[in-house]
Amino acid sequence: MDSDSILIGSRNVVFNISLVDLSENVKQRIVWPPTAAHRELCYLKGKSEEDCHNYIRVGAKLDEDRLLLCGTNAYKPLCRHYKFDENKIEVLKESEGQGWCPYDPYHNNTSLYSDGHVYTATVADFGGVESMIYREPLRTERSDLIQLNDANFISSMAYEDYVFFFFREAAVEYINCGKIIYSRVARVCKRDKGGPHQFWDRWTSLIKARLNCSVPGDYPFYFDEIQSTSDIVDSVYNSTPSKLIYGIFTTPTNAIGGSAICAFSMDDIMKTFDGAFKEQESMNSNWLRVPPNKVPHPRPGQCVNDSRTLPDKAVNFVKTHTLMDEAVPSINQPLLVRISPRNRFVAITVDPQVRTLEGIAMDVLFIGTDDGRIVKAVNRGKSGSIFTEELLVNVKHSPIKTLSIARGGISGTKLVIITNDEVQTIPLHRCSKILTCRECVGIQDPYCAWDTVTNACIAHGDIIGSKQHLIQNVFRGVHTTCQPSGHVVSAVAQHPYEKDDMDMDNKEGTICPKCSECNTNLCSSGENSVGQEKIVIYSADTLGMVVTTSVVATLVIGFVAGYFCSRHFRKNAYTNMPLHNPHNSALNGEGGASYLSPCANNKSINLLVNVPPKNTIDKNANTSSDNNKTLQKVKKTYI
Amino acid sequence: MDSDSILIGSRNVVFNISLVDLSENVKQRIVWPPTAAHRELCYLKGKSEEDCHNYIRVGAKLDEDRLLLCGTNAYKPLCRHYKFDENKIEVLKESEGQGWCPYDPYHNNTSLYSDGHVYTATVADFGGVESMIYREPLRTERSDLIQLNDANFISSMAYEDYVFFFFREAAVEYINCGKIIYSRVARVCKRDKGGPHQFWDRWTSLIKARLNCSVPGDYPFYFDEIQSTSDIVDSVYNSTPSKLIYGIFTTPTNAIGGSAICAFSMDDIMKTFDGAFKEQESMNSNWLRVPPNKVPHPRPGQCVNDSRTLPDKAVNFVKTHTLMDEAVPSINQPLLVRISPRNRFVAITVDPQVRTLEGIAMDVLFIGTDDGRIVKAVNRGKSGSIFTEELLVNVKHSPIKTLSIARGGISGTKLVIITNDEVQTIPLHRCSKILTCRECVGIQDPYCAWDTVTNACIAHGDIIGSKQHLIQNVFRGVHTTCQPSGHVVSAVAQHPYEKDDMDMDNKEGTICPKCSECNTNLCSSGENSVGQEKIVIYSADTLGMVVTTSVVATLVIGFVAGYFCSRHFRKNAYTNMPLHNPHNSALNGEGGASYLSPCANNKSINLLVNVPPKNTIDKNANTSSDNNKTLQKVKKTYI
Repeated sequence: MDSDSILIGSRNVVFNISLVDLSENVKQRIVWPPTAAHRELCYLKGKSEEDCHNYIRVGAKLDEDRLLLCGTNAYKPLCRHYKFDENKIEVLKESEGQGWCPYDPYHNNTSLYSDGHVYTATVADFGGVESMIYREPLRTERSDLIQLNDANFISSMAYEDYVFFFFREAAVEYINCGKIIYSRVARVCKRDKGGPHQFWDRWTSLIKARLNCSVPGDYPFYFDEIQSTSDIVDSVYNSTPSKLIYGIFTTPTNAIGGSAICAFSMDDIMKTFDGAFKEQESMNSNWLRVPPNKVPHPRPGQCVNDSRTLPDKAVNFVKTHTLMDEAVPSINQPLLVRISPRNRFVAITVDPQVRTLEGIAMDVLFIGTDDGRIVKAVNRGKSGSIFTEELLVNVKHSPIKTLSIARGGISGTKLVIITNDEVQTIPLHRCSKILTCRECVGIQDPYCAWDTVTNACIAHGDIIGSKQHLIQNVFRGVHTTCQPSGHVVSAVAQHPYEKDDMDMDNKEGTICPKCSECNTNLCSSGENSVGQEKIVIYSADTLGMVVTTSVVATLVIGFVAGYFCSRHFRKNAYTNMPLHNPHNSALNGEGGASYLSPCANNKSINLLVNVPPKNTIDKNANTSSDNNKTLQKVKKTYI
Repeated sequence: MDSDSILIGSRNVVFNISLVDLSENVKQRIVWPPTAAHRELCYLKGKSEEDCHNYIRVGAKLDEDRLLLCGTNAYKPLCRHYKFDENKIEVLKESEGQGWCPYDPYHNNTSLYSDGHVYTATVADFGGVESMIYREPLRTERSDLIQLNDANFISSMAYEDYVFFFFREAAVEYINCGKIIYSRVARVCKRDKGGPHQFWDRWTSLIKARLNCSVPGDYPFYFDEIQSTSDIVDSVYNSTPSKLIYGIFTTPTNAIGGSAICAFSMDDIMKTFDGAFKEQESMNSNWLRVPPNKVPHPRPGQCVNDSRTLPDKAVNFVKTHTLMDEAVPSINQPLLVRISPRNRFVAITVDPQVRTLEGIAMDVLFIGTDDGRIVKAVNRGKSGSIFTEELLVNVKHSPIKTLSIARGGISGTKLVIITNDEVQTIPLHRCSKILTCRECVGIQDPYCAWDTVTNACIAHGDIIGSKQHLIQNVFRGVHTTCQPSGHVVSAVAQHPYEKDDMDMDNKEGTICPKCSECNTNLCSSGENSVGQEKIVIYSADTLGMVVTTSVVATLVIGFVAGYFCSRHFRKNAYTNMPLHNPHNSALNGEGGASYLSPCANNKSINLLVNVPPKNTIDKNANTSSDNNKTLQKVKKTYI
């Protein structure tokens, strides 16, 4: 809870990890296993030993010293208010967690603490079929396919008077054409007080729209399944400041593996919600646009002063017309597309408006794959987007679960990477790893420039004073000073798939000829490399199907990918904890355990705790006591 | 028209090419340019010089010495009956070709001569919007989106009492969900005589169904765009003899490039046509299954004795219920899938029931890509399908237009490959090119076996007598005799995409590490290689947008891929000509010209005729006279 620290929820435990050196503040560790009675009940329900732990999935810092946590608690979701003293952690109260946290650690959820309320979106029943968006006491209708249809929640964030939820779900409007998953954004009003009379506990402002991430054409090609979003970032679009959300969209699990990055402006999202509604007049009708004259006043889905005074007609309309007719368009076409049978994108975070040497601002995207890689890309605005770097950060090829950027402070700006295996931080750029001018310019990384005086590739943002002696070319990747041969690094092709192809064939090669070799290469820091840190808490090898969940103290903005640098850096009042949930279970069939490991800057001390029996089939009915095991040195698996 | 010969239609000309050595029988050449008046009219309509030729697209051998040809004739389709004498070719009659042949050489068409009738499917108007299935005088309804909706015809074939058409078209049943292309098979009765009264010139038996080539799953992934089919082949499915059709299906043009091979049994196709119909009750209704009690008697779509006596109700029903409710399922899931941003599959032919050394029969598939490659694959039945070989046959990477197998006779069995650039033949196997036992067994080619006596890789089918000394392993690709190290060539993965991935990563490497290097490698025969022959008639380089069309004397079975070995080999009464049409214009934006070249078995004499001006922009208003140019030697471009 100090500055430079991060809370990471896990299985039966929440760790407080320093971002300076990834060491754990053991005094601030919260241990919260399910009771023996709850575990017994969980077994009786037919669940496995691994499932019958308390996977902590919801976290919110309510004020300076109070923290709300909710966990799966052996298939009996439970929430707790904790109070932190100097050296003491106290449980203030405990309450039922149904609707706040899923029963099953494999189910996705998202939660958000905003203006004194906790918003959650999850599956609210034991069987995992009842999707729900919830803010006490308001909830979505039960088994109403129009409101939510087997939704998989990705993220949530607050913006203006509203809270937004990003998710994918079975498309009700597509049923006559087959089965398909669509990506959605839903919106509720923060001031929603429920409807009149029997609607007192129902949303009166919930509406949703499809997110359109597609390659345009006579027959557009859609990337339909949202996997991750960034937070709302202050960016620039069409030369005007815009609030953007970057999202990762993939093809379905059994389709050709394709991933796309699309960005949506909050203005476009709001505009879609101000547009026409969609309806199906009768059971066998098509889904059609609702004529404007059929929309009641006040317009459903808007914030009103007191929703309890709304006419029944308006409340009924919004319940049966949750879906907007138009989809939210992405800005331009997909910024980047990758086609690969080997991996998909599953996580994203953005360093917005990074300035090039010439002062041009560009969003730098950090993308996690489902096989343990980090891909770096740059949205250069009108000049198109490019992939610049790719590195393998998890040699076991575990999916990247959460990416986030921890800023400033004594630990500097870092990319924090959480997989089911481990937590690690790496610098946002690897300029100093590059040894030649040509490569330094060729990587087209806005962070990096070649210093013609010292003959080194440096992060020009760290330089104060004259930058005359630095060279960079993010647009073309060549500079006459260091490339007199005139060889031009191939420009970015216009067709998005070709971009990808180039990325796979050429760009990877620029830095790292074969990514499988990354860990022995420039792409990856070796054992003694500076800046990359990792903490291993317990080993996934030994866990098989266990998915480690973690706490996110969400804030003003969302919590799926979770904020996780402490308030010192975010200049806000909350400590953020990254969520460590099995988001993309569709893509990543197996879970894994959570690693957390502290290691000092240039040291490689990995610590192993919470080690269940080696054989996953061996059930250990009392692994809760594992938390008390002392830390022990283990063979380092990877840096 | 002799044995061992093949008719190839082209621009203003039909060549008679010997399959023995690919030499042209100049005496049998038919020259048929449009008249100067037609060309002038074509220019007046705003068409280019290249479009205003006579691209011969329909061909049918009516009897021993009579041939029907139809061509685009400078945007004024025309048909002619030719009579062949010993040394004379005579035009018997000439008639309008509208409905038989498209106006635009870029448009697809198919035609079939069966039981004395010519069946054609094409676009029947100048603008190219009116798709039509035609057999004098019967035709499909004009502008009826339910019957045909912007159809792209692929092939046609006769089976039992029916004629089948394979095509892709905009899916009318999908309109409420967006725009999409579906693959279809349509069926008409050969004995259809038209309806009563005003329906005298309309089909009374035309029905169609979707072809389902998809990777199964909760959310199946569809390959929706049919590109090519084989003929009906006598194969085995589920241990029983079956009539199968192999088809190539791709993703849409602007989607991730993916190609799949699916096979359909004629039994399944017939069963689907015996199933429920689909209908849209009113304009805004969903498309739903028609209840059986609403289907009139006699059941629409069946053959009846005299369709002119059908009740109006039955005729009206079939006109408004052309579409079947169920799609035709493919046998199993796609046999093979390839995902590649570089190329797609566009042509297929099958050598059915090739026997392995142990006598197990397998269909060998030869697949052409849109970048000039031939991929060989084996359908091993329950053991799954594998790619075995890939070779670049067209160094200019022109799309393969037509593939066919020419059997027996003095020229032996050969694969005939037609691109816009050239015609060439290659042997069906390349066993003798392989020098080591390990590779010979590893290629998993049913044609090839390793001779342990002579230490050579041979085609075991040619061996008469004992085969005890031969080894082969089509299922695992290893044999202890030649691989004592025990290294196992990786088995075929179960997931179809992985198969493909393997194919791209490993299999290509088995024979040919990089296919771009194929022409200097084992994969491709060098200048002196035995068996590969090529004939170049005129150069695509100089033509730009011109698509060469060709004549297919279609027969009992279809004509898009066209039969083209002469009657001597087919044991039928017709000479077949391959169609050389711009089938896949969606995938292959540019056309090219047609090459034909005769060269003796081990010689490399390429001949160049019909050479338009080097600069495509230079218009040559009288290229029809080009046909009279004498043959001249040219630099060989590729063997």
